[in-house]
Amino acid sequence: MERRLEVDPWRIVETGFDAAAGPDCMASESLFSIGNGAMGGRANFEEFFGGRTLQGNYIGGIFYPDKTRVGWWKNGYPEYFAKVLNSAFWPGIDIYVGEERLDLSICRIEAFRRELDMRRGVLSRTFTAVLPNGVKVGVKVRRIVSMAEPELGALSYELTLLSESGAEVSVTAFVEGDVRNEDANYDEKFWEPVALDRESGALTMRTKKTGFEVRWTQRTAVKAAGRPVSGRNVSENERIAERFVCTLKTGETVALDKFVGVASSLNHPEAELAAAAESVAQRAWAAGFEAVLAAHEQAWAEKWAGCDVVIEGDEAAQQGIRFCIFQLLQTYTGRDSRLNVGPKGFTGEKYGGSTYWDTEAYCLPFYLCTSGEEVARQLLRYRYRQLPQAIGNAAKLGFKDGAALYPMVTMTGEECHNEWEITFEEIHRNGAIAYAIYNFCRYTGKRDYLAEGGLEVLVGIARFWAQRATFSEPKGQYVILGVTGPNEYENNVDNNWYTNYLAAWCLRYASEAAEYVAAQYPDDYRRIVAATGLNAAGDEFARWREVADGMFLPEWTLEDGETVFLQQEGYMDKEQRMAADIPAEQRPINQHWSWDRILRSCFIKQADVLQGLYFFQEAFGGETIARHFDFYEPRTVHESSLSPCVHSILASLTGRAARAYELYLRTARLDLDDYNREVHEGLHITSMAGSWLSVVEGFGGIRVGRDGRLHVVPRLPEKWRSLAFELHYRGAILRFGLGTGEVRVVSVNGRPAEVVVGERCYRVDDRGIQVKVG
Amino acid sequence: MERRLEVDPWRIVETGFDAAAGPDCMASESLFSIGNGAMGGRANFEEFFGGRTLQGNYIGGIFYPDKTRVGWWKNGYPEYFAKVLNSAFWPGIDIYVGEERLDLSICRIEAFRRELDMRRGVLSRTFTAVLPNGVKVGVKVRRIVSMAEPELGALSYELTLLSESGAEVSVTAFVEGDVRNEDANYDEKFWEPVALDRESGALTMRTKKTGFEVRWTQRTAVKAAGRPVSGRNVSENERIAERFVCTLKTGETVALDKFVGVASSLNHPEAELAAAAESVAQRAWAAGFEAVLAAHEQAWAEKWAGCDVVIEGDEAAQQGIRFCIFQLLQTYTGRDSRLNVGPKGFTGEKYGGSTYWDTEAYCLPFYLCTSGEEVARQLLRYRYRQLPQAIGNAAKLGFKDGAALYPMVTMTGEECHNEWEITFEEIHRNGAIAYAIYNFCRYTGKRDYLAEGGLEVLVGIARFWAQRATFSEPKGQYVILGVTGPNEYENNVDNNWYTNYLAAWCLRYASEAAEYVAAQYPDDYRRIVAATGLNAAGDEFARWREVADGMFLPEWTLEDGETVFLQQEGYMDKEQRMAADIPAEQRPINQHWSWDRILRSCFIKQADVLQGLYFFQEAFGGETIARHFDFYEPRTVHESSLSPCVHSILASLTGRAARAYELYLRTARLDLDDYNREVHEGLHITSMAGSWLSVVEGFGGIRVGRDGRLHVVPRLPEKWRSLAFELHYRGAILRFGLGTGEVRVVSVNGRPAEVVVGERCYRVDDRGIQVKVG
Repeated sequence: MERRLEVDPWRIVETGFDAAAGPDCMASESLFSIGNGAMGGRANFEEFFGGRTLQGNYIGGIFYPDKTRVGWWKNGYPEYFAKVLNSAFWPGIDIYVGEERLDLSICRIEAFRRELDMRRGVLSRTFTAVLPNGVKVGVKVRRIVSMAEPELGALSYELTLLSESGAEVSVTAFVEGDVRNEDANYDEKFWEPVALDRESGALTMRTKKTGFEVRWTQRTAVKAAGRPVSGRNVSENERIAERFVCTLKTGETVALDKFVGVASSLNHPEAELAAAAESVAQRAWAAGFEAVLAAHEQAWAEKWAGCDVVIEGDEAAQQGIRFCIFQLLQTYTGRDSRLNVGPKGFTGEKYGGSTYWDTEAYCLPFYLCTSGEEVARQLLRYRYRQLPQAIGNAAKLGFKDGAALYPMVTMTGEECHNEWEITFEEIHRNGAIAYAIYNFCRYTGKRDYLAEGGLEVLVGIARFWAQRATFSEPKGQYVILGVTGPNEYENNVDNNWYTNYLAAWCLRYASEAAEYVAAQYPDDYRRIVAATGLNAAGDEFARWREVADGMFLPEWTLEDGETVFLQQEGYMDKEQRMAADIPAEQRPINQHWSWDRILRSCFIKQADVLQGLYFFQEAFGGETIARHFDFYEPRTVHESSLSPCVHSILASLTGRAARAYELYLRTARLDLDDYNREVHEGLHITSMAGSWLSVVEGFGGIRVGRDGRLHVVPRLPEKWRSLAFELHYRGAILRFGLGTGEVRVVSVNGRPAEVVVGERCYRVDDRGIQVKVG
Repeated sequence: MERRLEVDPWRIVETGFDAAAGPDCMASESLFSIGNGAMGGRANFEEFFGGRTLQGNYIGGIFYPDKTRVGWWKNGYPEYFAKVLNSAFWPGIDIYVGEERLDLSICRIEAFRRELDMRRGVLSRTFTAVLPNGVKVGVKVRRIVSMAEPELGALSYELTLLSESGAEVSVTAFVEGDVRNEDANYDEKFWEPVALDRESGALTMRTKKTGFEVRWTQRTAVKAAGRPVSGRNVSENERIAERFVCTLKTGETVALDKFVGVASSLNHPEAELAAAAESVAQRAWAAGFEAVLAAHEQAWAEKWAGCDVVIEGDEAAQQGIRFCIFQLLQTYTGRDSRLNVGPKGFTGEKYGGSTYWDTEAYCLPFYLCTSGEEVARQLLRYRYRQLPQAIGNAAKLGFKDGAALYPMVTMTGEECHNEWEITFEEIHRNGAIAYAIYNFCRYTGKRDYLAEGGLEVLVGIARFWAQRATFSEPKGQYVILGVTGPNEYENNVDNNWYTNYLAAWCLRYASEAAEYVAAQYPDDYRRIVAATGLNAAGDEFARWREVADGMFLPEWTLEDGETVFLQQEGYMDKEQRMAADIPAEQRPINQHWSWDRILRSCFIKQADVLQGLYFFQEAFGGETIARHFDFYEPRTVHESSLSPCVHSILASLTGRAARAYELYLRTARLDLDDYNREVHEGLHITSMAGSWLSVVEGFGGIRVGRDGRLHVVPRLPEKWRSLAFELHYRGAILRFGLGTGEVRVVSVNGRPAEVVVGERCYRVDDRGIQVKVG
């Protein structure tokens, strides 16, 4: 593999720049994206760029309900498709040297270095460029989206004249509100201007239809050759702009610091937006760029505490996992339970909506282990807040009595995807939401969340499954017809094993949870019964158990007489081929084959039966998992970013070490190495949690076992000398050091915890333990 | 049933008008539509109307490729969705009496009569209206879209002053080019103006993207109180307009005759459009309205010759069937093999594209029997012309070596629908196209079309099926996975019996056809072999036979031990309910149930297994058909306009007379009685051919039998005293008179033909035969 970017444990580094390499330029814009959970954006150049670019700045929770109807819209289809909105371009700096505009697409570039410091969350860039008029300049830029101040973006832009004669330089700092989404169906504009406030250097825009208002306030400080320069307000239309003109001699520098406050009506009454944005920008301006940067770096240091992963012996893997952690930390902070983990985070506009089942299946364990219980709890609360919409969503599909179907994709709880085979049929997502509650309780060892909100969610979900399963007379069992499993390369299948198994599990778990809350939190239970009408019309638990116990689970007997759980009925009628037999030029098949050809093939997009075996591995055991891995993995094309990680974990678990490592590299460096040639569209944020799981659960072998205790069973790739990581676990922050034949664990914050190594349970405190393993 | 329109054997009549009854006004606009195969439009008022209206004027073959993409477009999806385009409003007349505009939505209407004379193809309207200013006028309008001149629309508009004092009347004749489609996703305009030629009263517009150019030229003649009035050219923007002002005394009339030539770049080089439209308008103007009308009526008389149906004893049924025939005659004339039978004809804009499998399955037999061989042959040629696109379409889906998949919906041969479950999967349409060739040969008794174009089409279709079927190891048979059958209330099912049966039949028929052409037309065969590479890589016929003979056809054993062909695998796992048990307020289910609920239900939209038994009734026999009818019909909700007709025929065939009649009324008066409350959107043109089939094949019992001869087995509804109809059959025009216990047949044009009545074959000539039947 030839890598375009340097391998470095803490940095993403690009040296050299070729404006003609369009997709690579855009890929770098994705890879160097920065954000702070509340907002973020692509690493577009501050100054004008005439080459290929995808400009993108996004504010969490702000979206546009796009219309996607055609003549024959069917009943129950979602009203809209939620587009993640590109918002005002806040980092803008427009440079003229003499009459010539600085534009890297037409300059001769003598040096170029772009760097993302993942430890500090700083995007920086230095370059030397010769403009078409022959003037040579050196530029150094540092930019942050402040982790300390959620509403602040800041940058420092320094330009030094390197030519032998002096020149007049004009520097215009701007925020441009007239932006578009690339995926707008009719090049429609999604924002309308509300006010351009020249006096205070501020702009207010409002989203069409959804009516979100956002205020941007810009503050600047400019020095040329060390002396302050005053600017001229050149704002117009939907653009705040301040122009600074100075004459530089050779070697002199003009330095512009810029602070932009971004306040939205998600967080402020509209009447207070102006004051809020102004306050943020003004305070930052008064403190100065270096102070703002210091606060930001301090906040990043705190975020990294307790979640770093250190791999010795494999720098590419090291960089890959840090990149994943960095992206996850800057996409979701847990500050706001209305936000979630968008599949592209703040790095691109593809995919509508912000919340997929990725959150529950992949991201929740990451935040639970690395950011502590409260952040993960916010993700659970997000779904609890949206329970009424989930009930409404199910009602639209004909379900009743408080049955809840969580949306496949959402911003606000309403479904906002627009393909029936996904929206209506990929209902296994409802199970993942229940599983996340279970997973949270299991890992934290606490079940109080069931009383807080979990049980209500579980009741709604159980009611959905109890109604969605129907009785098949020929089979004499309950069946779930017309679903799409996690393998979206099959649509509208009957009796998907994963869905049926998960549904039955949900029904049982909801009963158990209800019994637990009734016994332990009787007041909450009364409140919940009153709110949900649980058992009002008879014994709901009995019905749930009947459906769970009577659930049909398809199996297939292989030629060797062993059985496997069958992905869905009829799967074996397909021509059985192996993914390895697909000619390389036809991979990925989703870019080369028509949709029906994919549907008709036996090829699997991502873990389906294996997703179930992963979730419930304690219930199945290694031999069963191994048999299914050997059956399904060779049929899997891994064309979802969520696929390699689960397979890597299962490969580790079943001793398929080489395959585990191969699959790990594919997940952890998916974007850095641009495996699927699509990074220009944005990064695969949610699957980065899967990469982390591959390391910690797969190679680290961390798992809460049937005994409810934390187990560690290291299975390091051959190349790795050691693997160290930290986990938040029941109040303790545990640092694990896994080397060849050895496990070390220490409680970093001194709080004790129990950890099982081998067959034995150890109490770990600040003195740590060191255990030899086979 | 309370009927809004009068029942009359030859006319559609509406008396009285309530501008506030929006949907009814719009329904009348649909029901009184007129056209001539090349163009047509809704019965919008000529003068301004401020109430609810759907303005629609359509030109055959002219469409717009609308964009319907969302973020995750899948491979092989069609590039566009073809919208039928609303074009310039040519019949416009704007009337002012004094300062007051004539607008029926704000007038007091003292008399109103709208009439569609189906025999003559004339839309007329008379009314007396009191304007808000108190002036009373009487208006009489006659309008035609000339059946004699495909590019001519003409109307006569007479307004008489009925108030006691005189008034100034201004009459503006106009053609308005600034029109929209109601179903435009973003209210986008699909036409752009090219030229407004004030001198010659002409307008040229061009469609966006597709670049069709159309020229409208208007000519007028106005008399007030018998004296010519000269007009003033008030054209502007995209509107040709000529204004005539006159002062009328009580009882005096202003009469405007208007002729509009409509020439399109489909039929003329762009440079000649202006001359073409001018010539049409000018000739008509010179001849005068009455002469234009006479030529039009003469053309209509010729169209009706040989296709009328006369029902004695049931005036509603009589009107219903004439309405169907009238619509079919004015929608498709066979003049132009690039055109086809759009599902809404010229009566509305709903549904994209113009050609569905309706053409082959339903319309072809109608035109074959009523308009003679040449018109039907044009429909076959339409598909032959589009064979290269069908091969391209299949190639997009991964098929090769000349396999052809005809599109589900098309304008030009390219697929232009946008739902994968239809486009990619509803592939049975490919079988209907083969069946139409077979049907044509069977009915005409001639197989020369196989050599002309049929065989090439059959080879492409057979190659598709041979590749699309795959071998199931567990079944040891060929299977067809992932299809949508005619019952579109199931998507992506495996082994739909109808599809599998039809595929196997196609494979055999294509072999037979090839052998026939090889033997009878060796030169053509050599040409076809060279063009298609037939058998170039081995014995294709052997492969076709292997797949046909090995085709899996699902069956199910009922409780009584009898078997039925099973609609698709897994159908019996569904909850088995009967359509009669669905509460009335939930019907039609497609307006009340979410799409997934419909998919999961056992309810059938339209004939599926039964469609196959209808096509191949000779292969199955009455007992088998009866058993399947009794199994499937009660599960059928008939929510396609194509459903009741096939069921009515099968009910007749199997002696279920009462049900046959019920279903017939539902099909023949579907639009006149607006069963589904959707006539305001346009009429169901293609299903009208099904209504005709219900009469002729169902009640008339006309069928080409296994012996290749025309059989007649009358099964008249109890209420009907007699049924008479004419058929084109192998050169003869046969008039059938079916009464109680009697069949009369005579050759109207004197050409002899053989007809089987009872067990005996008769030679019928101009003396006719009269046979007693049981």
